[in-house]
Amino acid sequence: MNSAEPPASVVEAHVRDIWQRDSASRDMGMQIEAFAAGEATVSMVVRDDMINAHGSCHGCFIFAVADTAFELACNSHGPVSVAADCQISFLRPGKPGEKLTAAATETYRRGRNGIYDIVVTGEDGATVAVFRGKSRQLSDKPRPTPEDPQ
Amino acid sequence: MNSAEPPASVVEAHVRDIWQRDSASRDMGMQIEAFAAGEATVSMVVRDDMINAHGSCHGCFIFAVADTAFELACNSHGPVSVAADCQISFLRPGKPGEKLTAAATETYRRGRNGIYDIVVTGEDGATVAVFRGKSRQLSDKPRPTPEDPQ
Amino acid sequence: MNSAEPPASVVEAHVRDIWQRDSASRDMGMQIEAFAAGEATVSMVVRDDMINAHGSCHGCFIFAVADTAFELACNSHGPVSVAADCQISFLRPGKPGEKLTAAATETYRRGRNGIYDIVVTGEDGATVAVFRGKSRQLSDKPRPTPEDPQ
Amino acid sequence: MNSAEPPASVVEAHVRDIWQRDSASRDMGMQIEAFAAGEATVSMVVRDDMINAHGSCHGCFIFAVADTAFELACNSHGPVSVAADCQISFLRPGKPGEKLTAAATETYRRGRNGIYDIVVTGEDGATVAVFRGKSRQLSDKPRPTPEDPQ
Repeated sequence: MNSAEPPASVVEAHVRDIWQRDSASRDMGMQIEAFAAGEATVSMVVRDDMINAHGSCHGCFIFAVADTAFELACNSHGPVSVAADCQISFLRPGKPGEKLTAAATETYRRGRNGIYDIVVTGEDGATVAVFRGKSRQLSDKPRPTPEDPQ
Repeated sequence: MNSAEPPASVVEAHVRDIWQRDSASRDMGMQIEAFAAGEATVSMVVRDDMINAHGSCHGCFIFAVADTAFELACNSHGPVSVAADCQISFLRPGKPGEKLTAAATETYRRGRNGIYDIVVTGEDGATVAVFRGKSRQLSDKPRPTPEDPQ
Repeated sequence: MNSAEPPASVVEAHVRDIWQRDSASRDMGMQIEAFAAGEATVSMVVRDDMINAHGSCHGCFIFAVADTAFELACNSHGPVSVAADCQISFLRPGKPGEKLTAAATETYRRGRNGIYDIVVTGEDGATVAVFRGKSRQLSDKPRPTPEDPQ
Repeated sequence: MNSAEPPASVVEAHVRDIWQRDSASRDMGMQIEAFAAGEATVSMVVRDDMINAHGSCHGCFIFAVADTAFELACNSHGPVSVAADCQISFLRPGKPGEKLTAAATETYRRGRNGIYDIVVTGEDGATVAVFRGKSRQLSDKPRPTPEDPQ
């Protein structure tokens, strides 16, 4: 975060706006744990309907919790941004019933491009996956916030 | 596929075995469209509970259909294999109600390592995403098939 | 290649133009083996000054031959394009004195974005590396060709 | 670095050993700027023979300086490790004559697998590229060090 960042209340409005409209993430039982400009932490408990053929969390749900932390972090600045490319390394299985926590930080942001690094950890603190996402800002116009007259 | 491949009935047994135990993929409404040694095609309709904050399919479900095609393709040879690394480029949104089709082909396989390329297309035939996955075989022992005495 | 492609002589002019100005690739001893719209094949012999601490070709030179094939393929259409992201998997070492061949094909192209897949093979035909590159077109204006009045 | 790390003199021996045998990196004019267990910083000046068709540093040499920092960092622990996969995002051109600095840190290490993140910066401190490398340890046996009887 630098001096050009919006105040915390505006960052919160951006994050809450995205979260409010992302019903898929809420349906997966995700929770926002923390956020700041360029950062977000999201958690999710591995449910029975998320289990793969090997008896552990299907990779797409580990991807999901990381992707949502990424989405909140890259949209925290205001202008609408979307994922362009994501790379994930699966390092140990997610267990049934385990709470996974995905913490996103901003590695790079310039013009319309951003790079975010997300680490997913299990309940024991071990690294379950690392994820790197590239975002692309769709427009220069910030989304409306509660401070803006509509 | 080369001469060392198991016969089609054995490949089918491997694919059906993985599919039978992957309840998450079935819960997302996926369907197997086709398979062969090292190849698999899977489809999925974008449901209302898969929509993200931008009104299109959450990236994790586009990832999911590609990942499942990858899983079937890399396990089609028999020995249990898991995803180690995946990279996905999102090229156009998946629309609500749209049927997405993920086709996996084998780019490389040697020893315990494989590389699979998956293309996800929309109903209009346009490319929605490209996905490259690296698999790691966990053991040399093939899984039991219906032909094997248990 | 589709009907919107420039004629072969124009593709050749674009490829030759890039090649002529890429002194680094020529200094590494690379040779153009073939090209077409969206495709290029480049070869390079592993020289003594390209050897790493393990006695095989330094990864950067395997990257280099793949990257140059990618550069020629993505610029074959005319408008200036540059590499935005590259991913390489190293699969077997490149040997001292071995001729490596990198073949680039176009997996996706729309608007200013392209995805190219490059396979690097050794003299024995074995896969040495696979490389996926994303290109970004810098402008809509095609570079001048011999057919254009300057 | 944790309590299981070898003492600094042993780390130095491992790094010097790799460096001594990596003639390609030295021929490109690279310099070791700093190192520790799991970390290494390497610099390189962009020479005239490293220039591409766009008048800036050929991507393979930006890759090279990052790859060498990665190689030193992942081998700093002792056992011989090699690059398995590398991903690089090119963010701004490297200029002729510019000194590029690549700093590698360890994001993950467990068993034979490691993940390293490298940031390449220009003389103005701007980020030129970010690189993520996965390493694979070839054997459990540490390389001989000056402290070992040969």
